[in-house]
Amino acid sequence: MYSHPAVIQLHHTDAAGILFFGHLFMLAHDAYQAGMAVLGLDLRRILDEGTYLLPIVHAEADFKAPLRVGDAIDIRVTVERLGQGSFTLAYDFVPATGDVAATARTVHAAMAPGGGAMALPDELRAALAGRP
Amino acid sequence: MYSHPAVIQLHHTDAAGILFFGHLFMLAHDAYQAGMAVLGLDLRRILDEGTYLLPIVHAEADFKAPLRVGDAIDIRVTVERLGQGSFTLAYDFVPATGDVAATARTVHAAMAPGGGAMALPDELRAALAGRP
Amino acid sequence: MYSHPAVIQLHHTDAAGILFFGHLFMLAHDAYQAGMAVLGLDLRRILDEGTYLLPIVHAEADFKAPLRVGDAIDIRVTVERLGQGSFTLAYDFVPATGDVAATARTVHAAMAPGGGAMALPDELRAALAGRP
Amino acid sequence: MYSHPAVIQLHHTDAAGILFFGHLFMLAHDAYQAGMAVLGLDLRRILDEGTYLLPIVHAEADFKAPLRVGDAIDIRVTVERLGQGSFTLAYDFVPATGDVAATARTVHAAMAPGGGAMALPDELRAALAGRP
Repeated sequence: MYSHPAVIQLHHTDAAGILFFGHLFMLAHDAYQAGMAVLGLDLRRILDEGTYLLPIVHAEADFKAPLRVGDAIDIRVTVERLGQGSFTLAYDFVPATGDVAATARTVHAAMAPGGGAMALPDELRAALAGRP
Repeated sequence: MYSHPAVIQLHHTDAAGILFFGHLFMLAHDAYQAGMAVLGLDLRRILDEGTYLLPIVHAEADFKAPLRVGDAIDIRVTVERLGQGSFTLAYDFVPATGDVAATARTVHAAMAPGGGAMALPDELRAALAGRP
Repeated sequence: MYSHPAVIQLHHTDAAGILFFGHLFMLAHDAYQAGMAVLGLDLRRILDEGTYLLPIVHAEADFKAPLRVGDAIDIRVTVERLGQGSFTLAYDFVPATGDVAATARTVHAAMAPGGGAMALPDELRAALAGRP
Repeated sequence: MYSHPAVIQLHHTDAAGILFFGHLFMLAHDAYQAGMAVLGLDLRRILDEGTYLLPIVHAEADFKAPLRVGDAIDIRVTVERLGQGSFTLAYDFVPATGDVAATARTVHAAMAPGGGAMALPDELRAALAGRP
């Protein structure tokens, strides 16, 4: 779907000297937001229009190698699953060595502004369908 | 106005082993949010009612001694200035030693939901007036 | 193992008006850090001594109901698994309603300072064994 | 000194719908870290070598216009002051409209690893001198 460059910032690290695990989810979301914008699905517009919400209902990550301040990484986002009312994105965090340092997964569910589940909006389905 | 206990969390620190300066502003805001709630000024209610906004228009901090993961601190908030359309809060960050490790200051301006400046709402003025 | 009170802060929320999913992991870690301290396992001491590291190698969360600014929650941490070289903690995030709003899980692996896997240190095993 | 592009991410915003003020300092530091790297002053190398530290001893920001999710901004960093033992950086946050939305300032002091003040290291002085 999208490849997003990022650099590990000092405030992503902690006193153990490496990326604090929670910040990986922020970085994943940065890549998601950028990829959606490229597909014409600006989060800002979706929020402003208010016809549907896309809350993340599940998130997970696996950490394979430490990331340190200044590391340049490529965040590779793929559409792993496109369901009736939700979709799943997978993320590989790849530093310059080429070895995946971490992976993540987020599940996004379509919700009506009032709160109930709904089918994925057409614009979303069309944009994500057929994406690798 | 209020004294708020906090503990420096691992994700507040960075690879230099001490509090990342930017997180001090998050901690200051935690103390502000808690102090406001005690005065009957829940940020949630203010946001939900939408009759006024209270954006922070200025923030500053001075760092005198390093704070480390696990440090228990007391954040002492005082009303430094209560103006016509804004107020200023001052914060002392005091660890167990009693020596102030950092200070901060935030200026909050009353704004109409549409965007223009407005006088401080009565409930806010009444709650903050006479506070030390 | 431990029950940790928290309040959803304004900076935990995003423009959709609810907790940004990534911040749940910060809150989970706050509860972990506090629970470890109660067991005599201060993260600060572990980092300073440097005889072992405890990187999080897996993290996941499920979001069942939105959390909003000002929500008071109880984070209930349990030891789900105590393995040879790693342990798993489970977290329930319980607001005042009593209905679990989110759950999380973190897997912590013991590592030698040089980088290789190692058995869980005795102090850790002793402290966590028999904990609910 | 340096101009750094950034996009306001969803997790930079809060339930009031705009950038949470504290995150501006994270963005300022991102620009600082990138600018230093361009000058050959990688924070990673400075931390690893451990011959000096550069703690931020003062930070401040003024907020002139709201920033929203998806806003593309240019962070323009200038060396405002190059002192004996510290230097001051100034930041303009400029969205596509060209009107400065926020400004910030950080003061960085040179410290010996043991903790005392020291003169700015030569490599730092040489890199920053004459920078606009």
